[in-house]
Amino acid sequence: MVDIANRVWNHKWKIDPIVRSLIDTDFYKLLMCQSVFRNRPDTQVTFSLINRTKSIRLADLIDEGELREQLDHIRSLRLTRGESTWLRGNTFYGKRQMFRPDFMEWFENLQLPPYHLEKHDGQYELTFEGSWPEVMLWEIPALAVLMELRGRAVLHEMKRFELQVLYARGMTKLWEKVETLRQIDGLRLADFGTRRRHSFLWQDWCVRALHEGLGDNFVGTSNCLIAKNRDLEAIGTNAHELPMVYAALADTDEELAQAPYQVLADWHEEHSGNLRIILPDTYGTEGFLDRAPDWLAGWTGIRIDSGDPVKGTETAIRWWKERGEDPTKKLVIFSDGLDVDKIAELQAHFAGRVRISFGWGTLLTNDFRGLTDGDALAPFSLVCKAVSANGRPTVKLSDNPEKAMGPADEIARYKRVFGVGEQERMEVVV
Amino acid sequence: MVDIANRVWNHKWKIDPIVRSLIDTDFYKLLMCQSVFRNRPDTQVTFSLINRTKSIRLADLIDEGELREQLDHIRSLRLTRGESTWLRGNTFYGKRQMFRPDFMEWFENLQLPPYHLEKHDGQYELTFEGSWPEVMLWEIPALAVLMELRGRAVLHEMKRFELQVLYARGMTKLWEKVETLRQIDGLRLADFGTRRRHSFLWQDWCVRALHEGLGDNFVGTSNCLIAKNRDLEAIGTNAHELPMVYAALADTDEELAQAPYQVLADWHEEHSGNLRIILPDTYGTEGFLDRAPDWLAGWTGIRIDSGDPVKGTETAIRWWKERGEDPTKKLVIFSDGLDVDKIAELQAHFAGRVRISFGWGTLLTNDFRGLTDGDALAPFSLVCKAVSANGRPTVKLSDNPEKAMGPADEIARYKRVFGVGEQERMEVVV
Repeated sequence: MVDIANRVWNHKWKIDPIVRSLIDTDFYKLLMCQSVFRNRPDTQVTFSLINRTKSIRLADLIDEGELREQLDHIRSLRLTRGESTWLRGNTFYGKRQMFRPDFMEWFENLQLPPYHLEKHDGQYELTFEGSWPEVMLWEIPALAVLMELRGRAVLHEMKRFELQVLYARGMTKLWEKVETLRQIDGLRLADFGTRRRHSFLWQDWCVRALHEGLGDNFVGTSNCLIAKNRDLEAIGTNAHELPMVYAALADTDEELAQAPYQVLADWHEEHSGNLRIILPDTYGTEGFLDRAPDWLAGWTGIRIDSGDPVKGTETAIRWWKERGEDPTKKLVIFSDGLDVDKIAELQAHFAGRVRISFGWGTLLTNDFRGLTDGDALAPFSLVCKAVSANGRPTVKLSDNPEKAMGPADEIARYKRVFGVGEQERMEVVV
Repeated sequence: MVDIANRVWNHKWKIDPIVRSLIDTDFYKLLMCQSVFRNRPDTQVTFSLINRTKSIRLADLIDEGELREQLDHIRSLRLTRGESTWLRGNTFYGKRQMFRPDFMEWFENLQLPPYHLEKHDGQYELTFEGSWPEVMLWEIPALAVLMELRGRAVLHEMKRFELQVLYARGMTKLWEKVETLRQIDGLRLADFGTRRRHSFLWQDWCVRALHEGLGDNFVGTSNCLIAKNRDLEAIGTNAHELPMVYAALADTDEELAQAPYQVLADWHEEHSGNLRIILPDTYGTEGFLDRAPDWLAGWTGIRIDSGDPVKGTETAIRWWKERGEDPTKKLVIFSDGLDVDKIAELQAHFAGRVRISFGWGTLLTNDFRGLTDGDALAPFSLVCKAVSANGRPTVKLSDNPEKAMGPADEIARYKRVFGVGEQERMEVVV
């Protein structure tokens, strides 16, 4: 029999909210937010949505009213008591009270700041302005909302059996990946797929599939809400926005050259162990490591997030050896455009030479490639980045010029300051 | 686990349609429609919504946009192949091919005509104009939509446990009625509750509860869609709109006096047996029976739909005896404002003197009285009536002046023509 009360309840909602919690976000966002809250709380920043896949005309696919409803819903969210309890009481990376009381008090009173939305040439111009610790928390939910609304626009055209078979195929496809990953000895893998997930429920399903399928080889999820709900480890360290904003704030070329190290000096003071992971590629990995202070070689590991991952890792191994460190003790985290083949290949290549871990993102939580007509659900490359800080533009070079961003003259200046020469161009899929 | 495909499907709908089928209507509407289609197809009529419970300010409770969406959805409906097959192939009242091929062909091509909607003084003015056979089919869906949207407005303010307990109480309340009705020997009872139901799903639940609880004492439902889905008898005969429109079309007082009999003469030609049920109260039961032709006394029975039902039935019994008929062979159908107490009382009063049947409406399918704060879900008296025919106003007197309608001077003329004197005033609850 139809459960009438339940059905009435389900039909009461004006919208089906995509993001329902302020901790439905990546763990590293909260770590970085606390660092910014401590070290640079008054910085004024602008974050912007950037769709690197121009062929996906988001403003044609997604209704502006629905987008606003979802963003407005996110602005209505507040940290709940249970969420605060979990953040305050949990052990992250073996450490209790990772989040300091002053930060938690601020977070408990946080409402995300207003957004600015316009349509331009088939794309949405979505920007967030305000103080850095507030604005930065828009990144993940904004991306998740746009990815899921695009998916919903496609699903809206599908009928009942089509939908059932679509998800049956999606589940089969992921489970076959799990079966492949099971063959890899010593695998350590985490979910990094919040920002470009197909949907929250799908990410949750994928995480549970990995947990059942990989057992202890699945080390956790970057998504705090799922980590909390499923009693898993929350995983993550830091990202490009820290060096990008620190660099934009530099007054001279000398300060600019030092900015990426200043970020890690601040981090060094706050965190130890597995949280001391270098992200070296913001302004070119090679130059960054060459000029790095010695204390950085003592850090736990490195995250490879652009360019050829084999080349990047070999560079890091060489650098550790030069600085008298034992690479086999070092952790290398791969997180750029991973899928099972690349994971297997990198694991085979570096097993025994370094400790390895994988942060699997888009192709974990949003791989519906080949499952619909015209591949209408294929993932695409959407980012939400700090584009200015205290009125100055930010710049990112990375190890792949396809991922570079910023004004041309500033890119030229950064290349000169950081001594970046010719780079290998690689297609950005996701 | 969440069935993601199913959930996506359920959230795809822009609206939750209240009426999803052209046969989600009362069976007698279709019988009358066929009669009108045959005898008076070119009559132009106006039907109007009339809320007799002025304290319920529908236009304040129900969003106009939602109302329009529901009405527009009804205009998108067409008779489906399965529905047509059921109407063409079924046996109704023991007769096959109740619906003639020319009528079915017309029905299969029917789209309900446009509606006209305005707000006035906290109420909706909803009118339908056009040819009689088309416009008349708006009555039941229009009422069902307004009743359910009013219910939804109230449910919208309720939380999850409140809703669950509300329906638990509603179910308990109905089941206790079923247990009382079970005690009544020889009960014959049908569902007449489509027009003022709480919701389609609730009516369906109530019908199934009666079917399980009363067994063969439950004789069927007036709702064609539920009759089809649940393989039950579709029940109904004719209503006031026939004499009201025939009367409005009369050119002289003599024709007016004959109009109600002309309706039944047309009906006599088309139907036999249990479909020959007199509805005598449109212009006063007593005068109607006094002046009735003898052949009408040979009809199967009478439906008592206004005034004091004991008095009305005694009048009919007296009349049958005067005309040499045996009242114990006659069927009396009670259908006005019934609930279990009145059903038990009428059955006890007339058992053995006439054959009895009950058409239980609003207090079967919409009795949430006493179950919410401020009785916000209590049913109210909403009707949708023919108010003019070929430009002339219609008039109804009934056996209760509270149910009378029409312009004052026309009411006076009708009272004179039909010899209606002082009437007992009775409160109209539903």
